[in-house]
Amino acid sequence: MNWNARFSDAASRIADADAVIGILKLAEQPGIISLAGGLPDPRVFRIEETREAMAQVLTDHGPEALNYSPNPGITELREFLATRMARIERIRCSPEEILVCSGGLEGIRHAFNALTNPGDPVLFEDPTYMVALQVCRELAGIPVGVSSDDAGMIPEALDDTVLRLAREGRAPRVLYVGPSFQNPTGRTWSLKRRREVLEVAERHDLAVVEDHAYGELRYEGEWLPSLKSLAPERVIFVHTFSKIFGPGLRLGWVAADRGLIERLGLLKLGTDQCSSALTQRLALAYGRAGGLDAQVERAQDLYRRKRDAMIDALADFPCRTPWLRPDGGFFLWSEVDCDTEKLLLRSIERHGVAFVAGNCFFADPTSAVARVSIRLSYSYVAEDLIPEAIRRLGQALRETVGS
Amino acid sequence: MNWNARFSDAASRIADADAVIGILKLAEQPGIISLAGGLPDPRVFRIEETREAMAQVLTDHGPEALNYSPNPGITELREFLATRMARIERIRCSPEEILVCSGGLEGIRHAFNALTNPGDPVLFEDPTYMVALQVCRELAGIPVGVSSDDAGMIPEALDDTVLRLAREGRAPRVLYVGPSFQNPTGRTWSLKRRREVLEVAERHDLAVVEDHAYGELRYEGEWLPSLKSLAPERVIFVHTFSKIFGPGLRLGWVAADRGLIERLGLLKLGTDQCSSALTQRLALAYGRAGGLDAQVERAQDLYRRKRDAMIDALADFPCRTPWLRPDGGFFLWSEVDCDTEKLLLRSIERHGVAFVAGNCFFADPTSAVARVSIRLSYSYVAEDLIPEAIRRLGQALRETVGS
Repeated sequence: MNWNARFSDAASRIADADAVIGILKLAEQPGIISLAGGLPDPRVFRIEETREAMAQVLTDHGPEALNYSPNPGITELREFLATRMARIERIRCSPEEILVCSGGLEGIRHAFNALTNPGDPVLFEDPTYMVALQVCRELAGIPVGVSSDDAGMIPEALDDTVLRLAREGRAPRVLYVGPSFQNPTGRTWSLKRRREVLEVAERHDLAVVEDHAYGELRYEGEWLPSLKSLAPERVIFVHTFSKIFGPGLRLGWVAADRGLIERLGLLKLGTDQCSSALTQRLALAYGRAGGLDAQVERAQDLYRRKRDAMIDALADFPCRTPWLRPDGGFFLWSEVDCDTEKLLLRSIERHGVAFVAGNCFFADPTSAVARVSIRLSYSYVAEDLIPEAIRRLGQALRETVGS
Repeated sequence: MNWNARFSDAASRIADADAVIGILKLAEQPGIISLAGGLPDPRVFRIEETREAMAQVLTDHGPEALNYSPNPGITELREFLATRMARIERIRCSPEEILVCSGGLEGIRHAFNALTNPGDPVLFEDPTYMVALQVCRELAGIPVGVSSDDAGMIPEALDDTVLRLAREGRAPRVLYVGPSFQNPTGRTWSLKRRREVLEVAERHDLAVVEDHAYGELRYEGEWLPSLKSLAPERVIFVHTFSKIFGPGLRLGWVAADRGLIERLGLLKLGTDQCSSALTQRLALAYGRAGGLDAQVERAQDLYRRKRDAMIDALADFPCRTPWLRPDGGFFLWSEVDCDTEKLLLRSIERHGVAFVAGNCFFADPTSAVARVSIRLSYSYVAEDLIPEAIRRLGQALRETVGS
């Protein structure tokens, strides 16, 4: 049977993701130093404490942990998250305003699916989280990029974009953003920008999806309020255990209006019905034992050191724009003097180093800036390999620019 | 903000699921004996062996178990599943032809999404698994029911339905079936029917999604070959750990053509990116230690006893069609002399017993047969409560018919 001839439009729209998967696979080959994937450093995991929490779960809640759990999440975990968000993010919400998801991305997906129809424009920072773009495209939404700089999304650019789309008869309803230590740029929006962008969102009645995946990994500078805490009604706040416990749990959550949360839960019935009771119970036991806070502290120290090591190694690197020194998160971002897809192939094939070419993070991957952009991740690579990785990358860049 | 006014078409299409969720919540109230949910009996779980397998995972693979895992699943688990399917189901497939999912339903979703466009008809047994219907509707597919009897889908009915749709210019491409101990009827297709339906599928070039969720829970009668083993190329085989280990893991898998599996993996990038490395490693360790086979044996004994207890209790129950005595699975199915939605409300409110009204399992929930159908689950209810549950249900039925 020729299955290729049977694929739906959705399956065709997602096919582009294949190229990125291919590159990530190449990056995992032996001998390659990878600055590509955004994986946590395994040294932040607290295996012994995880084992203890899991043993406790199976002793105290074994039968419930192995069975189906409530669609919106285990009640005690939703209560725990509400309390923790109040303490850490000054977000006030009730447990009923929280949906536990299988990773933050599942929450983003359901938010897009609940609030946009095929053909609708969806607003993104330019550049933005690649998988959120892919989900939007799979759902037949039309990603529209909004110009951003190192202080965050540019409010005038947002306003202009909304007005232009409205004039074209396709006023946008949804804005997706990552205001804290963004993937891929590492950028953090200033407080001023947060307020200004929310004002524009208010004026045009946009629902705002705030991705807080890296938000707790601040290792420098002052705490800033999330958009959710500044505009509780308008913002759909998406967070994840992936960076504060481990991606292997596949657990995240959404905090939003209660009626919306119920609808997102119905959409979740059609992905996995409910998230794992076992990993939910684990997250709860680990969190109650203080595991999340202890792990975040350890992660902050480790990633600060790795960021510094990479910034140091990049001191003489010939890039077009200076590397932003992020206050948190996993990533460095810049532009260079060549097509970064070409650079990537040369880097992998001849120099044994990998990164992610920037174009996949843009609503329009063919734009001039998209094609010369580059994302380096310092989260997973071993610290002592960073200088060698950057040396190899510099060599590949000189060759590519000169070729 | 009025979020209701913002909901997409997909969010509106899924809203019907809300009623069913509401009923299941009612069924969980204290004092209600529930024959509603299709949950495993917690007594089949082997908590001590699960704890041992989990301790081993965290000792041997802690850092990998807490991190992201490959999108299609952990290689060793895919190898284990290929070997196990060959042994138990005589299905020959390579690890590359397997996608690990977060429950079987996720695999069904991706198969529908990869192979149908909005507006396409999708063929289902009448009645069929409710959540598969909901997913089809959410994706804007049009469920079309095909008449079935106690021997399975009726091949002539399938042929007629395909021809009728083709005449209307909307020839179907996908058929979803549960040939073994089906949810909701408990039916198992005869070998003859399996072959005949596959012949019709071949003639009309239908892709066949085979849901094998209950397939290993045979506690009576002879093993029968899966559709997948009879037509390896045409069938997308979906199985789950939910009934052979525990739903709390949220793990299932799809076995299908390799190119299709890769495409389903891309769609999985947009739900949860990868399934939990922790629960995948747990399933592998537990499976390698013989846990799955031991648990299946225990489950077979337990559910056979519970089926017998319920069949006995139903001896004088006034239903319109005789209860099928299933050879496996979780469910009994029949028709009664009243609207079962009305019966359900009376049963819960006045008699403290719950079940699922049959209409939600039909492509057309308003049909005459849909409205008088009833599903009873014997999987979760305590054995010694079964006679009392059926006594209460009989009382509610007499009152409803007489009212």
